[in-house]
Order: sequence, then structure tokens, then C-alpha cells
Amino acid sequence: MKLSFIAKTIGVHYEGEEVEIEGIHTLDEATSSQMSFLDNVKYTNSLEKTQAKVVLCNAAAAVYVPKTCIALIDEEPYLKLALASKLFASEVIELEGDEPIVAEGSFVSNKAFVGKGAMIGKNVKILPGAFIGCKAKIGDNTVIHANVTIYRDCEVGQDCIIHSGTTVGSDGFGFAHTKMGEHVKIYQNGNVVIQDDVEIGANCAIDRAVFGTTLIRKGCKIDNLVQFGHNVDIGEYSILVAQCGIAGSTTLGRNVVMGGQSATAGHLNIAPFAQFAARSGIISDIKDGSKVYGGFPLMEQRTWLKLQAKLARLLKPKKT
Amino acid sequence: MKLSFIAKTIGVHYEGEEVEIEGIHTLDEATSSQMSFLDNVKYTNSLEKTQAKVVLCNAAAAVYVPKTCIALIDEEPYLKLALASKLFASEVIELEGDEPIVAEGSFVSNKAFVGKGAMIGKNVKILPGAFIGCKAKIGDNTVIHANVTIYRDCEVGQDCIIHSGTTVGSDGFGFAHTKMGEHVKIYQNGNVVIQDDVEIGANCAIDRAVFGTTLIRKGCKIDNLVQFGHNVDIGEYSILVAQCGIAGSTTLGRNVVMGGQSATAGHLNIAPFAQFAARSGIISDIKDGSKVYGGFPLMEQRTWLKLQAKLARLLKPKKT
Amino acid sequence: MKLSFIAKTIGVHYEGEEVEIEGIHTLDEATSSQMSFLDNVKYTNSLEKTQAKVVLCNAAAAVYVPKTCIALIDEEPYLKLALASKLFASEVIELEGDEPIVAEGSFVSNKAFVGKGAMIGKNVKILPGAFIGCKAKIGDNTVIHANVTIYRDCEVGQDCIIHSGTTVGSDGFGFAHTKMGEHVKIYQNGNVVIQDDVEIGANCAIDRAVFGTTLIRKGCKIDNLVQFGHNVDIGEYSILVAQCGIAGSTTLGRNVVMGGQSATAGHLNIAPFAQFAARSGIISDIKDGSKVYGGFPLMEQRTWLKLQAKLARLLKPKKT
Repeated sequence: MKLSFIAKTIGVHYEGEEVEIEGIHTLDEATSSQMSFLDNVKYTNSLEKTQAKVVLCNAAAAVYVPKTCIALIDEEPYLKLALASKLFASEVIELEGDEPIVAEGSFVSNKAFVGKGAMIGKNVKILPGAFIGCKAKIGDNTVIHANVTIYRDCEVGQDCIIHSGTTVGSDGFGFAHTKMGEHVKIYQNGNVVIQDDVEIGANCAIDRAVFGTTLIRKGCKIDNLVQFGHNVDIGEYSILVAQCGIAGSTTLGRNVVMGGQSATAGHLNIAPFAQFAARSGIISDIKDGSKVYGGFPLMEQRTWLKLQAKLARLLKPKKT
Repeated sequence: MKLSFIAKTIGVHYEGEEVEIEGIHTLDEATSSQMSFLDNVKYTNSLEKTQAKVVLCNAAAAVYVPKTCIALIDEEPYLKLALASKLFASEVIELEGDEPIVAEGSFVSNKAFVGKGAMIGKNVKILPGAFIGCKAKIGDNTVIHANVTIYRDCEVGQDCIIHSGTTVGSDGFGFAHTKMGEHVKIYQNGNVVIQDDVEIGANCAIDRAVFGTTLIRKGCKIDNLVQFGHNVDIGEYSILVAQCGIAGSTTLGRNVVMGGQSATAGHLNIAPFAQFAARSGIISDIKDGSKVYGGFPLMEQRTWLKLQAKLARLLKPKKT
Repeated sequence: MKLSFIAKTIGVHYEGEEVEIEGIHTLDEATSSQMSFLDNVKYTNSLEKTQAKVVLCNAAAAVYVPKTCIALIDEEPYLKLALASKLFASEVIELEGDEPIVAEGSFVSNKAFVGKGAMIGKNVKILPGAFIGCKAKIGDNTVIHANVTIYRDCEVGQDCIIHSGTTVGSDGFGFAHTKMGEHVKIYQNGNVVIQDDVEIGANCAIDRAVFGTTLIRKGCKIDNLVQFGHNVDIGEYSILVAQCGIAGSTTLGRNVVMGGQSATAGHLNIAPFAQFAARSGIISDIKDGSKVYGGFPLMEQRTWLKLQAKLARLLKPKKT
């Protein structure tokens, strides 16, 4: 897509060199054919090193844009990013294109839907009411239960089980905001990749990435009604018990265990092997993975237990 | 429906004037062709002003019934209301009736279902496995993703996106109780209206109103796995993060923000622009919308943070 | 299935008597044609009294195995149990077998799926997108809304309503763990039974039992987005408000009420008529069903309210 067209569509003045833009990504990940953006001065460091061809930013930030990169200057760069994201959004469903490929030994119910360009491995079972979006991939031996939805471009590995009602690849929750308090959608043009040997319970929601990939790594076991924000990265063999929630861009190391109804804030790093009791509320990075945590705000679980016991004693009349 | 028939069916003695009753509503909202009820003396004021043709109430309350209104007297009026509500319930699906109307430019998958009398606007996309109930309306440019369920009589505005697995218009959670501890369903004969420009994430549940309408107003953005009780009214441009829950009959002003896993009690009024941190537990009205709240029970978020810090220090040995 | 075949498949040395094994169950419930296991010394008592034909256990426990029972000895009996469970797992869908039976007066949408051997009672409504698995049973007058999933072998009683997006009979969350931190699925070969007069809201998840039955008893009313672990037993006329969670193997007595977002730990017994405020966190048995509880950790609700009021006062400057 021509940069002049993008600029015109999103309402940014641009009269410089014409270049071709193939997509949008973060400053760190953008390639030299992509556009990026800076909305927060704390990422100025990333701006200075970006490979992006074009960066949306305000005038103050423009001085940090590398020489190889074109600055597209606007005082509301995040809002303009939102407008630009729509230009790169795929159709929710494609009616033309290659028929899906289904390998030998697989069962696809005639009451399921498999979109154009999808690839279904060997010995897969796709039950009635399941939806496999365009260009999605399902690995060998995987079972997709009834009424599961796998959005377009998402991938499920081998030997996985996805239980009914689960949604894989719905849009992440990302919006820019106007001064009038309206919300402008940032189109979520990434996908979800679920690696091999993962089991996901019923009625979970796994959002697709805004850019790049939301990742559930090998061997994870997920219970029912669990929420995954966009761009999370769940480490191998992690266990997430029912109704817990992982907010956007949080990374779990391998073999993390999260109890029921526990949750994390966004953009956190959780050390491998860390364990969290039910209802833990994780609001900052966890660097020590050797402990069991609990409470909200989070502390060591044994500390939380002691604290609760102490609090309960506050009501007892003082001995005199 | 004739009042004598209603009375006989629900087991209330009635020998007065025969009148025709078209439905049931609250004391405040009932028209002169509807029936209402009083179950709680705190609504006696509403009783005195009601326009209802008939009111179910006990003998003590009957003296407050206006002269234009017939008192249907029973010592368990709420239980009788439940029985009466069934008489006005619609069929869950109609097999006869007008074919749905689908305007130009719309795509309706042949693996979706669109009920009798439904109206689908222009450039709408209805993906496989979606269910659009009888007489439901979907506005122009709206996307209904795979395996979404829109119950009968519900309305979705223009430019909306409803993600997979979400249920719009399931029955509100309302029951009368017998003395033996059994629960008698109050049929939920209202609907849900979602206004323009609303995005709703995956696997949310939005209950239809018992009477009237559950309302999600213009420009709201709802994350995944969010719960809406019957008769809630969510103000314009509000943002509800994943796994939060709004209990029945609660009203949010415009631009309210609720963090993940936060929740409200029922029948509350939340001021416009109020913000709630993750896991807030809101148990009374919020009149000041200029603050950020948190905790359970709720307080200002900065107070909650201070309090938690103070509590954590309780475990530290005292300096001597 | 021959015991020698099971032993060989799961990698346990066995050269004793050949016997035929028909299934797996707990020590207390196994019949003389089933296999069982002991993984925790606290169940040694059950081991001594088991009727099981075969027990998987370690060498130390083997001395407690009754004379009528064969000990299959391995140092990781729970892991071997997991491997054995797969041998007894049913196909997720059967393509051959008896056509389902649908009794008179019932409506089954041609966009629903009803599996082989299923039995649908009289005057049932099964809406588009619903999935009724093989050999499942649906009682008279029951309504299965759009996009509900009832897994194979599960049973729903008479006069029930199951709202859209709800999953009944997905696999319970049970895994054995290898020393390398991998998780090995314990196949969930039980089912779910929902008795008469039960209403279940939208987008709930009810897991099938690992052995035996997950049970929702007569007259229960369940709100939206509620989670039921495997083998729970929910007492008659219990009320569970939105987003609450009942962990595996917990038993509720009759007429228990659980507020929104409340939850229990697993393997608990909750006395009949006990009431729990919203967000209660129940972590031990409740023996007194006459009270209202709240908080996490749980206490009497009125105590919790007092405690919270006292804590809030901690921030106030002390009077001098």
C-alpha cells in the first residue's frame, strides 16, 4: 500500500518520498517494509533503533527517528495508528480462494465449517458446529469439539484438544481514544498459535495478537472459562485453572501454575515454575519462580495466610 | 388475554370486571393495558401512581391501589407474578411467519440461522454457526462472528462487531420461591438492544430484560467473558474489561471504565466517567464520577493501595 | 480388556492371572470387574476395603491390597492410571450406530446435530447449532437453546432450559505429571447428569466426571458463566449466581446459594441451605448451613463486614 494513500486516508499531511508499506508492527519488530508508531516517550530507545520504513509520531519525537526511516508526524499518533490498522485488516471471511486441504484419516462434520485455504492435518476430528477460519491450520490428531471457533489465520498444533465453546483468535481489546471519549478500534491483524499437546477447556477466549502472535506453548493445559489477552506468551507445560485471566502482552515462563480465578495485569513477565494460589492478583513482574504466591496485592502465599490470620484476630477483644 | 383466564390459571380468586391484559410490566412502566405487581412495601409510592390496569398484591397493599386499577389479591404476589409471566412468554423459535429480510450487500452463511421476521441490514456479515432469532434486527455493516447467538426480538445496531461464543438475549436470572424452597421461573419477556458502534468480545453473556430492555449504549467496548444481568443500562462509550460482571438493573453512566474481574451489585447507579481498577467490588451507588476506585469493599483506589501497604506492614516486627 | 494387555500398554510388569477389566473407578466405587488405583496413603483405608479386581499402587501400598484383588505395582501409579484411562476412552463421535430416537412433539432444528444412539423426549426443542452427543438423553419438555453443546453420554432431565453457549460434559481437568514437568491426560470417562427442572444460563461449563457422574440435582438454577469441575454434586434447588466456580469433587447440599464470582476449593462438603455472599472464597468444609458467609478467606458475612470497616479505620489518624 502506498504511503501517500495511507497518509491521506488517516488524515496526516505527507509530501515526501513515495514508499510501499506492507503492514504495521511495533518499533522493535517492524521490518523495513512496515510502518510503526511511537505513542509513549518510554519507547524512544526503540525508536532510535527501529528498522521500520515509516514511523507515526508527534513532532517532538520525530527528532529521534533514524535516518533510514520516514517520520509521519501527527499530534495524535496512536489515533492515526488505529485508523491505519483498518487498512491492513483482512476480510473476516473469504468467499473465494483455495479449497481447504484435509489430510487422510480426518473427520470433518458436514455441520462444521472450514474456510478457504485452511489446512487440516491427519486423523483430525472436527465436530459439528466448529468453525475453522480461512487459512487456519490444524495439526495431526487434534480434536476440535463442537461449537469451537478458530478464527482465520490461527494455528493449532498436533495432538491438541479444544473443548466446546472456546474461541481462538477473536480480536484483542485495543482502542485509541478521541478527545471526545470515543474509542477507535485498532484492528488486530496478528494471529494465535497453539503449539502441540495443548488441551484447552470449554468456553475459553484467546485473543489474536494486534501484531505478531498470541502464543500458547507446547504441553499447556488450560481449564474452562480462561481469558487470554492479545499477545500473551504462555510458557511450555503451564497449567491455568478455571476462570483465570492473563492480560495482554504478559509472558509466562514454562511450568507456571495459576489457580482458579487468578489473574495478571498486562505487560508482565512471570518466571518459570512460579505457582499462584486461587484468586492471586499479579500486578508486577515475578522474578523468583521457586515460590508459591497468593493474595491481591500479591505476596508469598504463606505470608498472605499469616496476614489473614492476623487480621481476623483484630476483631477479637484485647486481653487486659 | 382475559383477566379471568389469567386469574384462574395462576390460582387467584377473581370475580370482578372482565378486562383484556396485553402484558406485564413494573408499576412505573406499566400501561393501562398491562398488569403489574407489588412485592415490596418500599414501592408503595409507585403503586399509588401506577397506570397499570391490574396489580397483583397482598391484601394490606390493596388499599393503595388507584381507583383506575384492579387489585388481584394474593398473599404470594411475586409467586403469582412468576406464574403469570409464563402466559406472556413467546415461543423460543417460530416455525411459521415472514421470511427474514436481508438487505443488499450482506453475507449470511448457509451454516448460520436467521429466524422468521428477522431483519438484516446492509453489508452485514453473519458467519457460520451464528444464530439470529425470530424478529431480531441487525444494523448495517455489523459483523456477527461464528457461533454467536442473538435470541429472538433482540436488536444490534450499525457498525457493531460481536465476537464468537457471545450470547445476547438469554433469560435473565429471575425466580420466585415457594415456601418449600423451590424456584419458579419469571419468564423474561423483554429484550436486549445494542446500539451503534459497539464491539463485544468473545463468550460474553448479555441477559434479556424481564420487562423492557437491557441496553448497551452507543460506542461501548466490551472485552471477553463479561456478564450482564437483565435490565442493565450501560452508558455510551463505556469500557468493560475481561471477566467483569454487571448485576441486574444496574445503570452505568457514559464513559465508565471497569477493570478486569470487577463487578457491581444489582440496582446501582454508577456516575458517568467513574473508573474502577481490576477486581473492584461495587456494592453501592457511585455519585462522584471523577475518581478511580478499587478494592472490595470499594474505596478510592489510592486509599486501597495505602491500606494494603499498611496491612502488609502489620506482619513486620515492631521496632523497639 | 485383558489385564495383560493393559499392563503391557502402560508399561507395568505383570505375569499373574489373566483377568478381564471393564473399566476404572475409585477404590470405593470400583466393582469386581474394574481396576482402581492408590496414589495417596490417606486412602489406604479404602484400599483395604476395595471391591476392585485390580489396583495400581506402589510396592509399599501393595501389602494393603485385599486378597480378592490383584496389585499392579509401579512407582508412579497415578501416571500409569493416566495411561490406562486412555484405553477406556470412548470415541468423541460415533459415525455408526443406532439412529437417535426423537419422541413425539419435539422440534429438532436441521441445523442442530443429534448423535447416534441419542434419545430425545417429548416436546423437546433443540435449536440451531445445538450439539447433542452420541447416546446423550434429553428429557421431556426441555429446551436446548442455540449453540449449546451436550457431550456424548450426558443426560438432561425433564423441564430443563439450557441457554446458549453452555457446554455440558467437556473433559474434567485431570492430569498426571511426569518428572520432567509434562502433563499426561487422565481421560474423563464419566458423564454429567442434570436432573429435572434445572435452568442453566449462558456460557457455563460443566465438566464430565473422571469416573462416575457430575451431578446437578433437581430444581437447581444456574446463572451465566458458571464453572463446574468434574464430579461435583450440586444439591437440589441450589442457586449459583453468575461467574461463580465450583471446583472438582465438591458437594453442595440442597438449597445452597452462592453469590456472583464466589468459588469453592475442590473436595469440599457444603451444608444444605448455606448462603455465600458475592466473591466468597470457600476453602474448607461448611458444616453449619444456617449462616451467611462471605470474604476470602471465608468467615461469617457479618464478621467480614465488621472486619472491613475496622480495616478502613486503620488509615484514619489516631485521636490523641
